[in-house]
Amino acid sequence: MIGNIAHKLKRDVDDLRDGKPLRLYDFDGREEETDLIYYGPKVNARSVAHLRAWAGAPLSVYVDNETGTALGLSTFLDFVKGLQDAKYERIKSLAAPAGGFDPRFAVTLDHRSNRTGCSHRETANTIAMLSDLISAGRHADFEGEFRSPGHVPLIMAAKGLLRTRRGHTELILRIGQIGGLLPIMVASEVLDAYTCDSMRKDRAMAYAEDHGIVYLSGEEISAYQDLEAAVA
Amino acid sequence: MIGNIAHKLKRDVDDLRDGKPLRLYDFDGREEETDLIYYGPKVNARSVAHLRAWAGAPLSVYVDNETGTALGLSTFLDFVKGLQDAKYERIKSLAAPAGGFDPRFAVTLDHRSNRTGCSHRETANTIAMLSDLISAGRHADFEGEFRSPGHVPLIMAAKGLLRTRRGHTELILRIGQIGGLLPIMVASEVLDAYTCDSMRKDRAMAYAEDHGIVYLSGEEISAYQDLEAAVA
Repeated sequence: MIGNIAHKLKRDVDDLRDGKPLRLYDFDGREEETDLIYYGPKVNARSVAHLRAWAGAPLSVYVDNETGTALGLSTFLDFVKGLQDAKYERIKSLAAPAGGFDPRFAVTLDHRSNRTGCSHRETANTIAMLSDLISAGRHADFEGEFRSPGHVPLIMAAKGLLRTRRGHTELILRIGQIGGLLPIMVASEVLDAYTCDSMRKDRAMAYAEDHGIVYLSGEEISAYQDLEAAVA
Repeated sequence: MIGNIAHKLKRDVDDLRDGKPLRLYDFDGREEETDLIYYGPKVNARSVAHLRAWAGAPLSVYVDNETGTALGLSTFLDFVKGLQDAKYERIKSLAAPAGGFDPRFAVTLDHRSNRTGCSHRETANTIAMLSDLISAGRHADFEGEFRSPGHVPLIMAAKGLLRTRRGHTELILRIGQIGGLLPIMVASEVLDAYTCDSMRKDRAMAYAEDHGIVYLSGEEISAYQDLEAAVA
């Protein structure tokens, strides 16, 4: 049983490794949203254009907690929590979480070689250069090579991924981890240009099928995770 | 002479006031980029979808310096500069400006009534609610109504607009000011889906003409500004 699911998921991840996108749905009863995902090291200007045109929400870069920490980052929420001076009272109120509000956003970035960082080409450059840095373990060069604020939001997963938090961020990184990929992914939520809302699951699945894109659900990843824990 | 330019620009701004977009090019020899612009209080889900599909870069909300300050904000760069503790050394290096790097980004936002803030509909809600708050002078309610981090980047113009800085941000707010609009605009850079780069001026102009969208240049706004100063 675990062999079947593992085999299926690893085949799905092969698409990411080959630079193809994948659609990932979270869970019925949670946000019920579909993300369009690419693997960081395989992103080029065409993938950025595809994410912007065919997903539509702002695209973000996702790294695991260990990578974010090695880059010297924390989530914006933790960063603001740490500010002591009374002059930070208003920004602390702005970042005061409401129920269920637990964003993993850390910082916005551009590679320093970019002119602005806006275009598909320059956004792809930021992502490719960050993938290179992570792949080579050059985390200490981060501030020298990148600047903030920029045009690419960086999201940092919770420590322990799905064992700690069942969010899009953790699903996105977990699927890469199952396939042995580097912990850097790029994703954007799939929106519906007609309703201007999140794209409904059935429409997102139909589009994926029509275009030969793998459609994966959080359920499958959870099932794998449970089985893996059971045999450990 | 100033009458002619003033008349032309004020007619252009009428489109914004009516909820229609406008294309604004900066200057030959500067960034040479075109922005697609909407007036904050007139933004709806369709305008957000239009910005994302037909401009393509991440959309941002632009306010003038006085508004940003009244909301308790500063630019991210100024915010980071003010951090004293040694533990902020890496984030300070990340935000260390290189030559000509002078971003006016302040913070990312969502309205607290949103589920996530990603979709065209919820992004439009964030923009509409912020326009309402500014229009009613309820700047003190900002942190109660909005949260950060969110999906909408807020950009704060330089004090004195074009007299201080000849950037996209200042042009965008200056054109609204000429027409007596509130200091809240929404814009995104127009990208070229074929080259994956900024859209060239001639192509951006041709598109605007084909679709009946006003195409305005920084040159025209500067000329007006100079004439206005001369008659003052």
